[in-house]
Amino acid sequence: MNEFRIIQLKKGIFEENDAKAAGVRQKLQEEGTFMLNIMGSPGAGKTTLLVGTIEALKDEINIAVMEADVDSDVDAKEVAKTGVKVIQLHTGGMCHLDAAMTGQGIDALGACEADFIILENIGNLICTAGYDTGANKNAMILSVPEGDDKPLKYPKMFKMADVLIITKTDALSLFDFDMEVCVSRVRELNPDMEIFPLCAKTGEGMEPWIEWLRQNVGVATSR
Amino acid sequence: MNEFRIIQLKKGIFEENDAKAAGVRQKLQEEGTFMLNIMGSPGAGKTTLLVGTIEALKDEINIAVMEADVDSDVDAKEVAKTGVKVIQLHTGGMCHLDAAMTGQGIDALGACEADFIILENIGNLICTAGYDTGANKNAMILSVPEGDDKPLKYPKMFKMADVLIITKTDALSLFDFDMEVCVSRVRELNPDMEIFPLCAKTGEGMEPWIEWLRQNVGVATSR
Repeated sequence: MNEFRIIQLKKGIFEENDAKAAGVRQKLQEEGTFMLNIMGSPGAGKTTLLVGTIEALKDEINIAVMEADVDSDVDAKEVAKTGVKVIQLHTGGMCHLDAAMTGQGIDALGACEADFIILENIGNLICTAGYDTGANKNAMILSVPEGDDKPLKYPKMFKMADVLIITKTDALSLFDFDMEVCVSRVRELNPDMEIFPLCAKTGEGMEPWIEWLRQNVGVATSR
Repeated sequence: MNEFRIIQLKKGIFEENDAKAAGVRQKLQEEGTFMLNIMGSPGAGKTTLLVGTIEALKDEINIAVMEADVDSDVDAKEVAKTGVKVIQLHTGGMCHLDAAMTGQGIDALGACEADFIILENIGNLICTAGYDTGANKNAMILSVPEGDDKPLKYPKMFKMADVLIITKTDALSLFDFDMEVCVSRVRELNPDMEIFPLCAKTGEGMEPWIEWLRQNVGVATSR
């Protein structure tokens, strides 16, 4: 009896989240804004990629950032140095963002007229994959030091994301990471995934990723 | 009204888990077994450390391993090559192990007479820190490529763990990781934490960690 009650609550949570995510996307469409949700393990290099991406695009696109964190503002401080508008979302111990939190974040950004909102999600390969934030596209980061077996171990994330950025490629010689094996494991889960291997620290390989963003922001703002 | 009901359920879950964890520890004590719960981000190097640790100790200590994974058996296959008894726990999408799952794992190991049970938890720095598995000690792994800011971002994990293993020290020259800064951030959260920087791949720095385990297993088996 009790178990049934728990299951109903969980179902309710997901249904409610999906409805709220649809509302977030509706709002983004009305405002001609492209929102990207970036997910990855702790330390995969989300913030470094974000800073490099902002530097490459900020002169041509109006960018705003929402930094999600359990309890700190380390990343928001780093991103704020680029000069774009940043807000910090604290989840208060929660291991993922949901659409309601994201919606609150968009409201908090206010009338900043961003064409491109980047949402840096909590460092987590499991829980974040279960919640639609309302973003237009979902990106995941896998760093070379984490290993090429991650698609086998966290398939849900690799299935739900639209784009995979393989970061820290400058470390390829130091780690047993087979790029071909990794890509083929990803393709088995998600044949249409866009894959960009790059090093945000050195800038190597950034351009195709930046061009992909340019196109997606262009589609959203011309609606 | 509904909200109150949800809070009661969550409280119930944690209380129930604490009771079950106490039961697991009681059973371990009766059998003179030391159980270590190993946590860390995806790709931090839990399995590589585990294999190196088993190789160093298997001739003197009877070891058994419980591998927790959302949905795969990649790590269990790797650990099985060492020749020790391994079982795979599938959480079916859950982002952490709780004491009930751990208890089931111990039952599944059966009468293997292990003096030392190693539990490799799900790759996650947030959710795993919230659940007592019943282990005697909690270890967390932080790998150098993840960065020295992780104590600032995931304080709960650094507070609850008894021992920190800083892995992939062979990558120190490639990454902006300041060991002194990291250790002082850890000490602020957890002054008594045992800290072992090491490289499981090359074997450098393994001995103090192995000795710490030897002592803990010795205490448990002499009870």
